[in-house]
Amino acid sequence: MMREQRSENPFGVLRHVVLFAFKGTSTHEEIRNLEDAFRALPGKIDEVHGFEWGTDVSVENLTQGFTHCFLVTFLSANDRDRYLPHPAHQEFVAALEPHLEKVLVIDYWANQ
Amino acid sequence: MMREQRSENPFGVLRHVVLFAFKGTSTHEEIRNLEDAFRALPGKIDEVHGFEWGTDVSVENLTQGFTHCFLVTFLSANDRDRYLPHPAHQEFVAALEPHLEKVLVIDYWANQ
Repeated sequence: MMREQRSENPFGVLRHVVLFAFKGTSTHEEIRNLEDAFRALPGKIDEVHGFEWGTDVSVENLTQGFTHCFLVTFLSANDRDRYLPHPAHQEFVAALEPHLEKVLVIDYWANQ
Repeated sequence: MMREQRSENPFGVLRHVVLFAFKGTSTHEEIRNLEDAFRALPGKIDEVHGFEWGTDVSVENLTQGFTHCFLVTFLSANDRDRYLPHPAHQEFVAALEPHLEKVLVIDYWANQ
């Protein structure tokens, strides 16, 4: 099946899309610190191949309340699977959770 | 303010992240046709600078029900603003809507 071929594509990159909405009680400084903590992960976890992020500037009113998008790129599913339980990632998640209103994560193999 | 500087960054690229969940009544063929219709848009709309997509392969159970992710890249907010009302995009949206369970769109200027 084509979909399974895509999911196992050994030549593409694996995108890990992470969306956050923060609690209204979290301060700008607390959110800034969490942004910085996420940005620091590529320097701590070798398996991260690419990293970018930004805050919403869309005009369609379809964000479903999410304000932050982080795009983490891996070269393999194994690298993603080493990233998730990595102590530096887990430390970030622990700091994040008290401030998180909601989260969405979707991964895909990048096809054209 | 740093966040506003980021949002107006004239040197980065503007990412347009689009997530879909399709209705359970939509067939695989109907969904495949919609995937193909979205993939055809970069060939029809000059303002699209980059395009990739894929279906969920995440392992964290945080997709919130979304199955498809499309990442459309623009070089400017003006290009995004020409893409949204473009007849080819609107034709795709009209074909999509009867099959759409839910949609999420978030745009961001790609920062490192």
